[in-house]
Amino acid sequence: MRIAVDAMGGDYAPEEIIKGTMMAAKSSPDVQLILVGQKERIQTFLSGGTLPGNVSIYEASEVIEMDEHPANAVRKKKDSSIVVATRLVKQGEADAVVSAGSTGAQMAAALLGLGRIKGIERPAIVTILPTPEGGKLILDVGANMDATPEQLCQYGMMGSVYATKILGIQNPRVGLLNVGSEEGKGNELTQKAYPLLKASPVNFIGNVEGRDVPYGRADVVVCEGFAGNILLKTAEGLAGVLFQQIKEKITSNMVRKLGALAVKPGLKEIARMMDYAEYGGAPLLGVNGISIICHGSSKAKAIFNAIRVARECVQVNLIEQIREDLPK
Amino acid sequence: MRIAVDAMGGDYAPEEIIKGTMMAAKSSPDVQLILVGQKERIQTFLSGGTLPGNVSIYEASEVIEMDEHPANAVRKKKDSSIVVATRLVKQGEADAVVSAGSTGAQMAAALLGLGRIKGIERPAIVTILPTPEGGKLILDVGANMDATPEQLCQYGMMGSVYATKILGIQNPRVGLLNVGSEEGKGNELTQKAYPLLKASPVNFIGNVEGRDVPYGRADVVVCEGFAGNILLKTAEGLAGVLFQQIKEKITSNMVRKLGALAVKPGLKEIARMMDYAEYGGAPLLGVNGISIICHGSSKAKAIFNAIRVARECVQVNLIEQIREDLPK
Repeated sequence: MRIAVDAMGGDYAPEEIIKGTMMAAKSSPDVQLILVGQKERIQTFLSGGTLPGNVSIYEASEVIEMDEHPANAVRKKKDSSIVVATRLVKQGEADAVVSAGSTGAQMAAALLGLGRIKGIERPAIVTILPTPEGGKLILDVGANMDATPEQLCQYGMMGSVYATKILGIQNPRVGLLNVGSEEGKGNELTQKAYPLLKASPVNFIGNVEGRDVPYGRADVVVCEGFAGNILLKTAEGLAGVLFQQIKEKITSNMVRKLGALAVKPGLKEIARMMDYAEYGGAPLLGVNGISIICHGSSKAKAIFNAIRVARECVQVNLIEQIREDLPK
Repeated sequence: MRIAVDAMGGDYAPEEIIKGTMMAAKSSPDVQLILVGQKERIQTFLSGGTLPGNVSIYEASEVIEMDEHPANAVRKKKDSSIVVATRLVKQGEADAVVSAGSTGAQMAAALLGLGRIKGIERPAIVTILPTPEGGKLILDVGANMDATPEQLCQYGMMGSVYATKILGIQNPRVGLLNVGSEEGKGNELTQKAYPLLKASPVNFIGNVEGRDVPYGRADVVVCEGFAGNILLKTAEGLAGVLFQQIKEKITSNMVRKLGALAVKPGLKEIARMMDYAEYGGAPLLGVNGISIICHGSSKAKAIFNAIRVARECVQVNLIEQIREDLPK
C-alpha cells in the first residue's frame, strides 16, 4: 500500500508532517509513504539526511497557502503539493492522500482530480468529535453551504458506512442536527430531510439538538456545512476557554496549586479524551478516492494517526463500500 | 413599575418562579410584581399563605405545556398564564412580562398581543452567553429560521442598543457568525448580510467564527435562528459534559479527592462564570413591549435576575431606544 503525504500543508509543515510520517513509517513497515513537496526543503528536516526504506520524496515545486482562493489556486498551481499528491492517487501511484493544508484546496483538488462517487451529488467534510462515548462523526462541517435534503440523506448513508467500517460501531445511530427533537421542527431543509432519512436504510434516530452532540447521543450527526462548522468550532472554542480558565483558577493560590498537582492526571485524561489529534483526520466523503483531511494545526501525532486512518480506509476498501450501499 | 410574572411556565413552575418573585419583591420594594396563573395552586406555595405588599396574584386558569404547538396553543388557550400576562402589558396594566415557559408560546403571545416595533420585520430571541470577558449577546437563537440579510442587519442594530443600554458596553463590537473570517466567506445569507452590516451605523467587526464566540471576541453575535440555536446548545452541552467529566476524573482515587477539595473553589468560580442563571433572561427583541424569555430550567435565582433585567429594560425605555435607532 502506498500513501501520499502532503508535506507542505498545515501550520507546522513541513517539520511536524515529516515527523509524523517517520513515526508511521516505523510502526507500519508494510506501507510505502510518499512525502510530496519541495525536495530540498524536506531534506533539511531529515535527521541524518537519510530516509527509511519505506519513505520516498516526490517533488512538487509549489505550495498553496491557507489564504489563497482554493479553486483558483488548484487550477493555477498545478505543481503544488496537494495537487500532485492527489494526482498520484488518480494515476494509481498512491492509494490515498493525507493533508493538513487548506481544506478548500484539498477539496478542490479531489473534486477536479478524483471526481465524485457516482450517485453522490456533493462530498462532505467529516470530522470526529471526541465525546465520553467515543469519537462521533459530524458531517458536513463545511464542504457545502447549500445542501439539499437529498444530499443530507446521502451524508447519513456515507457516515453510516464510515462509522461501521472505520470506527467499528455496529448499526450506528444517525441523527439529524436540528433545533428541536420532534419531527416537524427546524428550517425547510431539516423538515424535508427528516422523512428522507426516516425512509432510508440507515438507523435513523430522529433529530438531535446541539446539546445532545457532545454527550455522544448519535454516532453520526448529519447537517449542512454551515451549521456543522458552527457546531465544531463552537465546541473547539468552548473547550479551549474552559481549559484555559481551569488552568488559571486552580493555580491562583498556594493551596489550589498543591491540589492541582493531585488532580492533574485526571484533567490530563480529559484533555486526552478531547484531543482531536488522537483521531488524526477523516476522509472527504463522496469523492472517488481516499483523501484524508487533517486539522490545520496538526502536529506529528495527528499526522501519524491520519496515516493510520488512510491505511484503514484503503484496507476496508471504503469507496467500494460506499458505492455498494448507495441505492441502486 | 409593574412586572407580570408567568407563574406557570418552566420546568420548576410554579414553586421556583414564586420563590424568585418573592426574592425580587424583597430586594425591589418599589416594583409591583404580579404572579399570573392558577390562584389556588400558587397559594399552596406561599409560605405562611400571605403575600408581601408589592406582590399580587392575577388569575389565569389555563397552562400552555412545553409540547403544545405554540401558535395554536396561544390562539386556543386565551386564559393561559402567558397570554394573560402578555395582555396585561398590552393593556398598560404591566410594564413587562417574564416567563420561563414555552419560548414558542411566549413569542406567539407577544407577536399577537404586542405586535412588532415598526421597521422590525421579525423579532429575535436573544441569549447571553457567559464568557471570561463577560456576557455576550447572541441573536437570533431560534425565533426565525429563514432570516433575510436585512433582518440580520436589524438584529445587529437591536443587539447594539441592548448591549449598550442594559449590559453597559460602550460601542459594542458586532460580529456576523460565519464559517471563516474573511469577507466573502459563508453561505448566501451571510455573504449578503456582510455589506449591509458594514454600511450600517453599528460597530461591525466583520465575521466571527464559532471558536471566537466563547472567547468573547464580539459583544453582539448576529446569526439566523438555526445556527444560533446550534451554537448555544452545543456550548451548553459541551460545558455540561466537561464539568461532568471533571467531577468524575478528579475524584477517582484518594489522592485526587484530596486535591479536588483544594481546587474546588476555583472550579466553582468557573461554574459561576458559566451560569446562565446569573443573567436571568433576555427580552424578545423587536416586539412592541418588554417580554423577557428565561431558560426553561430556571430556578429562583434565574427568575430573580430576569425580573431585574425586566426592570432595567423598562427603566431605560428599551423599546423607545430601539425605535429611535432605527433608520428613518
